[in-house]
Amino acid sequence: MRKDATAAEIQGVMAAIDARGYKGHPIPGAQRTAIGITGNKGAVEAPAFESLPGVLEVIPVSHAYKLVSREVKAEDSVVSIGRDVKVGAGALVIVAGPCAVESLEQTLTVARAVKKAGAHLLRGGAFKPRTSPYSFQGLGEEGLKILAAAREETGLPVVTEAVDIEGLDLVEHYADVIQIGARNMQNFSLLRRAGRAKKPVVLKRGMSATLEEFLMSAEYILSEGNYDVILCERGVRTFSDFSRNTLDLAVVPAVKKISHLPIFVDPSHGTGRRDKVAPLSRAAVAVGADGLMVEVHHDPDRALSDGPQSITPAMFAELVGDLRQIAPVIGRSL
Amino acid sequence: MRKDATAAEIQGVMAAIDARGYKGHPIPGAQRTAIGITGNKGAVEAPAFESLPGVLEVIPVSHAYKLVSREVKAEDSVVSIGRDVKVGAGALVIVAGPCAVESLEQTLTVARAVKKAGAHLLRGGAFKPRTSPYSFQGLGEEGLKILAAAREETGLPVVTEAVDIEGLDLVEHYADVIQIGARNMQNFSLLRRAGRAKKPVVLKRGMSATLEEFLMSAEYILSEGNYDVILCERGVRTFSDFSRNTLDLAVVPAVKKISHLPIFVDPSHGTGRRDKVAPLSRAAVAVGADGLMVEVHHDPDRALSDGPQSITPAMFAELVGDLRQIAPVIGRSL
Amino acid sequence: MRKDATAAEIQGVMAAIDARGYKGHPIPGAQRTAIGITGNKGAVEAPAFESLPGVLEVIPVSHAYKLVSREVKAEDSVVSIGRDVKVGAGALVIVAGPCAVESLEQTLTVARAVKKAGAHLLRGGAFKPRTSPYSFQGLGEEGLKILAAAREETGLPVVTEAVDIEGLDLVEHYADVIQIGARNMQNFSLLRRAGRAKKPVVLKRGMSATLEEFLMSAEYILSEGNYDVILCERGVRTFSDFSRNTLDLAVVPAVKKISHLPIFVDPSHGTGRRDKVAPLSRAAVAVGADGLMVEVHHDPDRALSDGPQSITPAMFAELVGDLRQIAPVIGRSL
Amino acid sequence: MRKDATAAEIQGVMAAIDARGYKGHPIPGAQRTAIGITGNKGAVEAPAFESLPGVLEVIPVSHAYKLVSREVKAEDSVVSIGRDVKVGAGALVIVAGPCAVESLEQTLTVARAVKKAGAHLLRGGAFKPRTSPYSFQGLGEEGLKILAAAREETGLPVVTEAVDIEGLDLVEHYADVIQIGARNMQNFSLLRRAGRAKKPVVLKRGMSATLEEFLMSAEYILSEGNYDVILCERGVRTFSDFSRNTLDLAVVPAVKKISHLPIFVDPSHGTGRRDKVAPLSRAAVAVGADGLMVEVHHDPDRALSDGPQSITPAMFAELVGDLRQIAPVIGRSL
Repeated sequence: MRKDATAAEIQGVMAAIDARGYKGHPIPGAQRTAIGITGNKGAVEAPAFESLPGVLEVIPVSHAYKLVSREVKAEDSVVSIGRDVKVGAGALVIVAGPCAVESLEQTLTVARAVKKAGAHLLRGGAFKPRTSPYSFQGLGEEGLKILAAAREETGLPVVTEAVDIEGLDLVEHYADVIQIGARNMQNFSLLRRAGRAKKPVVLKRGMSATLEEFLMSAEYILSEGNYDVILCERGVRTFSDFSRNTLDLAVVPAVKKISHLPIFVDPSHGTGRRDKVAPLSRAAVAVGADGLMVEVHHDPDRALSDGPQSITPAMFAELVGDLRQIAPVIGRSL
Repeated sequence: MRKDATAAEIQGVMAAIDARGYKGHPIPGAQRTAIGITGNKGAVEAPAFESLPGVLEVIPVSHAYKLVSREVKAEDSVVSIGRDVKVGAGALVIVAGPCAVESLEQTLTVARAVKKAGAHLLRGGAFKPRTSPYSFQGLGEEGLKILAAAREETGLPVVTEAVDIEGLDLVEHYADVIQIGARNMQNFSLLRRAGRAKKPVVLKRGMSATLEEFLMSAEYILSEGNYDVILCERGVRTFSDFSRNTLDLAVVPAVKKISHLPIFVDPSHGTGRRDKVAPLSRAAVAVGADGLMVEVHHDPDRALSDGPQSITPAMFAELVGDLRQIAPVIGRSL
Repeated sequence: MRKDATAAEIQGVMAAIDARGYKGHPIPGAQRTAIGITGNKGAVEAPAFESLPGVLEVIPVSHAYKLVSREVKAEDSVVSIGRDVKVGAGALVIVAGPCAVESLEQTLTVARAVKKAGAHLLRGGAFKPRTSPYSFQGLGEEGLKILAAAREETGLPVVTEAVDIEGLDLVEHYADVIQIGARNMQNFSLLRRAGRAKKPVVLKRGMSATLEEFLMSAEYILSEGNYDVILCERGVRTFSDFSRNTLDLAVVPAVKKISHLPIFVDPSHGTGRRDKVAPLSRAAVAVGADGLMVEVHHDPDRALSDGPQSITPAMFAELVGDLRQIAPVIGRSL
Repeated sequence: MRKDATAAEIQGVMAAIDARGYKGHPIPGAQRTAIGITGNKGAVEAPAFESLPGVLEVIPVSHAYKLVSREVKAEDSVVSIGRDVKVGAGALVIVAGPCAVESLEQTLTVARAVKKAGAHLLRGGAFKPRTSPYSFQGLGEEGLKILAAAREETGLPVVTEAVDIEGLDLVEHYADVIQIGARNMQNFSLLRRAGRAKKPVVLKRGMSATLEEFLMSAEYILSEGNYDVILCERGVRTFSDFSRNTLDLAVVPAVKKISHLPIFVDPSHGTGRRDKVAPLSRAAVAVGADGLMVEVHHDPDRALSDGPQSITPAMFAELVGDLRQIAPVIGRSL
């Protein structure tokens, strides 16, 4: 309340709180009276009270997320993929592959290479969200079949993105992990559908998502019954102009403190520059990520999509070698 | 190219340009040699070249948007809504109504009030994208029927949001204008569907969308054949903490310079604060917006959604009075 | 406190609060116990408590600013400049002139033109903060003498920037208003010196300053005894790429709500583009600014500094004509 | 140029280029004619040309920095501090100490602890830039004498911040390295003075500084003759709300690519949270930083400044242990 708030104004606020079925707790202080609100489900819509006479400001002190919170589940969640991969169980999980599935040959070439270098999961886009309607949009179901064939040969479970509900039906059928991209982090219909899927979900952080928004989008998926959610930091949008996005690595310890869900980091989209992928990958492991998503292409300069941020199989193999030395420092095996 | 780039390196870059079917133009300069690229459709993927030996940096100088550009259509586009409303033809268009459709009575009460005060279109959400799965999500088709009933009585054409493809089918059926919200600005499947709709579309700018991304999302709609697109600035996400978003009014003259499409401003979402809606509405008209989208509720403190940013019918009527005086200064009628 | 916080943990927090000489107020709630803190001067350093066992998070509810606050002084402050100009008294105040003082002739030419068009104050930089050490840095004291001569002839009081303490001594001697630029908003030694000056101060908002930081920098000046402070919004840095900065006009009503200090808007630096200066100037007046700072140059394309954002005397005269029609709408004379 | 640019308009632009003493190179393309500009010292002021008829847009392709660039000096610079410390020579350099010097006893306690744990330099603030004029501002010269005494006993060279020119005289006298803080990154008078100092300088990145602005501020120092400059990333300001700033680690490889100067990372200010300092310190070393600046306090909860982001000597010792294992992975000794 304002310093000069009258008893009547304080009563008015208390009444407004009651009217919402909350409970108000006045705290007389040296400078002013504060009023605590309890009994609210989720966050109070602060401004609703700010417009009342005598009110200086309103500050929410509780959060809307429940199922994703450590207050509901204290121990780390472990997400199982395929027969052998466990995310969040201590072993570092590396997802690698081309940005887009271009052909069976290209996908097999990259899949064999990343498998050989130590990747645990194969990534590759069959449905590509592109800024321009005139850019390559992916091979669709044909691409999913190619990914399945690559899994057949290499044994690597497949992670691929779904950009709409009908696409999600197909991805759920062909792939092992359903990816929800940054642009769809608040596509709530898609999140609900993913929450009804029988496969694990990788949820990428939106370009300007706060931690609460990120966790609430995961909450949408859990609230529909799918608890196998892996978060993924892929860079946020800032004024900073030397990388395509600004990789916000502090989100990893921030998520670990609040939520039991595992979190990956995608340094390929997070930087958008081939020469920054390895340094930021090392940083992501050192900061405590449960896994990495890295774009690898055997001929990046000819890639149909995001070639500039893809690294070569040779660079990837060298990177994995570095990660094998860093992982144990934070108690992870690789 | 770098100052120390060798002739061989320059040849290498020229070759890479040819390999893509582009044309390279070397420009020997005092400090270094620059190489111009032409013949490319849309933007060159800069980093693809940056990784070549001898290259200092690559700067795209052309854009991917075509149909939305004044280079394709020099004169302002005019979007017709219902029988009488023309957006972009010089008359300021005011869209007003509740954030969410809560009931027939509430919607009619607000619709009558805004009609009386001078609004041209009725807005109201039947499908609400909410950060939390536990928040009110809208009345769905029932809400669309209420909006149609309100149009029946008041004669105000209806603008309402579609959050997914099946919802868009319904919105196209019941409403006069289909709104694509900020969170779906890059939901490309939804944009494509909107591009096949027979109704005009209001496309809201994403929270962290650049001007190019904003225009490219409009390009998705136009490229499917729907040329009746109205852009809408509703605030971007920044560090600035005293309003829910930062209303980026400079986008209005920026859009006018590049594109022929009309643009609205939504000061309700753009500020998130009732006491800032009127000042920023005046500013939006003064900066040259073709119209405003304003949230009005007869009892904002009891609104089921975004009440804090809704103004009362009385505040709205006063605002319209102010706008009637400002509009003529920039050659608009109201 | 966390839901699972023990009585002992709550006692521990209460003890930590006492140890700081504050007063703790436990508020048992349905979900958790909250603890209100009072008796603190200025903001509590939240994280100090967050690291205590059982604590979920800490939210500051009071602010450090005092003298700039309406809680200390409810009515608007009026800053007098020269004999006739009053800022914050209802009349719109227009500051115009070249970005940099280049010569007596250039300054007189522009000064006469802006005086004729209706400007109340003359602006012009003698000390220029430039990103590059190789750019024109201003004429220094010679420039101040030219500004004084221009005042002599036109009668327009002079506003000019001081970038360091010795420069401020000179600016205080020659000019009528001391400007502190955005880059120096948190140059606290300079703010302190300005607080001891006998002339009014225009304090520009830093490129990434929050409202609290902006007001606290003004508090530095007031706390030294100089109450004649005018705030100035000049755009903040965001990802938005079509203007040099993002003009954050919502700061005007935000400042008016919290502080009694008048506030200007600088659309020239706020946009960095000539073609956006007039639209954003109109918007700034419509949103409720007490005045404008506009860069005008008789030959912008040959200006030694920021020519691209300077408008011509003819454009300025036309703009003032528009502002004369908008100002009355919000109860300002011009 | 615009697609519809006339030959006359192209000539006009060529003339404007000549008028500036630059050289224009027209490149006729499929869609439009582009004009390359060479012969310019530093960046062309793009907008000056954008306002000419027929011009679509102007894109600078050269940068203003010279002395800091690898184009001027290809090999990494090594900055020598005291007798033994070499920054940029391959060995990881750790700077540790309290945020503020509070007393001789406190400083000695922390200095002994960090020395024992493996720190190479002692940090501590005698002049503190604080947002509020009512916060502890540091002990001034008394603090510098305490730091000198701590160096006397521990042999650790001292790094401390100067916030104004007279303070810099004192810091240069008492300390081994002069720190320029983020708030003063564009305090050009202070940078010039630092450029004339006989001691190395640590220059912290401003809260919203682009890479070019950061390097240009270093250029100010080098251009005055002081080549011993160490850059330092300490977090930038974004919408991201779970850490005080967003640590932008990609700046490390970005700086390494363009400049020969060494770069530190400050995870204490970069996160503002004790529990994030260790993870981001590990990440900073993994990404390739030449050194770290870490705040350590033996009793953080009683620290007079920034206690919440300070770690304890025990946490610091454990962190150094981790860093000893990570450093070799990127070829650094520790």
